[in-house]
Amino acid sequence: MLQLSARVEQLHASPIREILSLVSRPGMISFAGGLPSAESFPPTASLALTADMLQYGPSEGEPALRELIAGRLRALGRDCTASQVLVLSGSQQGIDLVAKLMIDPGTPVAVESPTYLAALQAFRFFGARFVSVDRTRPETLLQSAARPRLCYVIPTFQNPAAWCYGLEERKALAQACEAAGTLLFEDDPYRDLVYEPCERRPLCSFVSRGSWVYQGSFSKSHAPGLRLGYLVCSADLVTPLTRLKQAADLHSSRVAQHWILQLLQDPGFDERMLRLQAHYRQKRDAFAEVLDATFTELASWALPAGGLFFWLRLHEPVDTQALLQQAIAKGVAFMPGEPFFHTPPADGARYLRLNFSHAPAAQMHTGLRILAGLLRQPHTAPR
Amino acid sequence: MLQLSARVEQLHASPIREILSLVSRPGMISFAGGLPSAESFPPTASLALTADMLQYGPSEGEPALRELIAGRLRALGRDCTASQVLVLSGSQQGIDLVAKLMIDPGTPVAVESPTYLAALQAFRFFGARFVSVDRTRPETLLQSAARPRLCYVIPTFQNPAAWCYGLEERKALAQACEAAGTLLFEDDPYRDLVYEPCERRPLCSFVSRGSWVYQGSFSKSHAPGLRLGYLVCSADLVTPLTRLKQAADLHSSRVAQHWILQLLQDPGFDERMLRLQAHYRQKRDAFAEVLDATFTELASWALPAGGLFFWLRLHEPVDTQALLQQAIAKGVAFMPGEPFFHTPPADGARYLRLNFSHAPAAQMHTGLRILAGLLRQPHTAPR
Repeated sequence: MLQLSARVEQLHASPIREILSLVSRPGMISFAGGLPSAESFPPTASLALTADMLQYGPSEGEPALRELIAGRLRALGRDCTASQVLVLSGSQQGIDLVAKLMIDPGTPVAVESPTYLAALQAFRFFGARFVSVDRTRPETLLQSAARPRLCYVIPTFQNPAAWCYGLEERKALAQACEAAGTLLFEDDPYRDLVYEPCERRPLCSFVSRGSWVYQGSFSKSHAPGLRLGYLVCSADLVTPLTRLKQAADLHSSRVAQHWILQLLQDPGFDERMLRLQAHYRQKRDAFAEVLDATFTELASWALPAGGLFFWLRLHEPVDTQALLQQAIAKGVAFMPGEPFFHTPPADGARYLRLNFSHAPAAQMHTGLRILAGLLRQPHTAPR
Repeated sequence: MLQLSARVEQLHASPIREILSLVSRPGMISFAGGLPSAESFPPTASLALTADMLQYGPSEGEPALRELIAGRLRALGRDCTASQVLVLSGSQQGIDLVAKLMIDPGTPVAVESPTYLAALQAFRFFGARFVSVDRTRPETLLQSAARPRLCYVIPTFQNPAAWCYGLEERKALAQACEAAGTLLFEDDPYRDLVYEPCERRPLCSFVSRGSWVYQGSFSKSHAPGLRLGYLVCSADLVTPLTRLKQAADLHSSRVAQHWILQLLQDPGFDERMLRLQAHYRQKRDAFAEVLDATFTELASWALPAGGLFFWLRLHEPVDTQALLQQAIAKGVAFMPGEPFFHTPPADGARYLRLNFSHAPAAQMHTGLRILAGLLRQPHTAPR
């Protein structure tokens, strides 16, 4: 029997990837993944490849793309230069790199509860001990017996809870991290998917001397299949993160980087973003309408101001795993809420994450009716 | 001061990436990297993107590409199915995944001496304690006090030493790993770059019950800028490696996978490989001719039967770092041999790795003449 590393004990199946492999079955109605709608993709005019794009390139990323990313973050209020930008093979890679950089077995890591489940998995794999951070009580960061070395948050259109921090909450949490000597790790994949006016200024823009990592994605507003994202970090972290990137995959696809650069520099870019937002706003509103008509006696939720998800709190706890099996048998998939919590929520198993961007309108109606029907049946008590 | 993880103490600069960033200066003649020649790239006809390629995809890779990879490995004598194939974002990623899977602080890891320096770096980062494995004495695997958990080898056109294992050496090392309960990790990026008849059967084809990982690259014979490779593994490792891949970057670029698939299925593929081999054989021979004329009194080497490198052993030890600085000042770059050894070689600092694929013919002549000139000068003793 082969002996594996001790950390593999903390290597578990990804609930979301397992469900996604089920939902690729023809006819399945999926509210499970955070999949962009296929209609949202940029025009797939063919990409002209040049020989230069095929050669090895710099680990940090293509210089023109790094400049452009730094300029965009500066425009959001965070002073930075292109030298602080690292292009990633998707923002999941940033989570892996920061986990390697920061987490030893037993390291305290502050996360929102709930939070992105694949971040929990990556942090847990390296031995994180989780503590909760609450945007309404940032001072707890300083009060915990073991100060968190790392604080991971998704302040804008959070996954899965869809909330968005207010300006004072942003300032206060950034300052609490700085005061605690905690690395602020801000994950911001949804910021361009905005449907209502709301505060989106990056937390890292309020950090003056502390360490920070801000990361963004090209998956949600452009194309996940390219696997391209980026991080920008405080100057102290540029060298170790670049070395970690080298060791992980040498550098990210140059073909993908040139295509994204072309999209970002396109004169029609702002127009395309507005159309994308209108498209998703319309999908969100249609989804909300069906929820209002079908789910009010079953659950409560807030209308998301951005992002891709509704986060439902059921009035009664249910066995969400059993519910998922029943739903899949009827051709509908969703994400049970539990895997998004680092410890089981105090109010029991009663959360569902529903994606509104992917399913076409007719399927959305059918799928939500099926789900409501299952919830109205007598169901097994939560385990 | 931010507290980083303990493993970051073992995070060092990559000598090769540092040198490569120097050699991008215009006019620099580089024998340093393992860069394919730009003339070797496949025709850059534009790639037709489809919307499907832009969506999220399976972590394991595109099914058609996995089938094709499994079929190719079966044709080399290793029984396997597509379910054992994992598409990677370059084969460097496979090294990261296997390191995460296998290595705890202090874990004994067997490697060739010398070996690929970025594998040493990745293994060291996770805490590996290195022991040497020698193809001529595989039985030492079983004799070492602490049996290695992992044995990493590049049996075909090794990097940097360019050697190629014979058939009996292949069998014996595979069987020694199996007998020792050691994971055989076979890295095979150069196998298609073959210039003389020689044994290339994968070691993993001689493993019956043991655990193994075989990995290949599309960088050396197709295009490194795509960042695409793959691994195939014994059935026991499919699940943990797939989960590690998910946590690292969800999946690899679908655009890159479809383009590679198109290249591999092209009816002109075999023809293109033959042309590629002829192109590199000619470059190797031209390089050997200049070495013969200029370096015989300075160093010894073997003509590589494949791959991208000459491995020179200088008759006298030199300070290769000082030599590199002098060479760079004169516009020539090479790789000092030391970073390829897990412990300093017994015969002192006297190795150079010279890449023959990248520099055009005229530059190659000039660069080797400059390097020989520097070696003929009185030089500082090795540090």
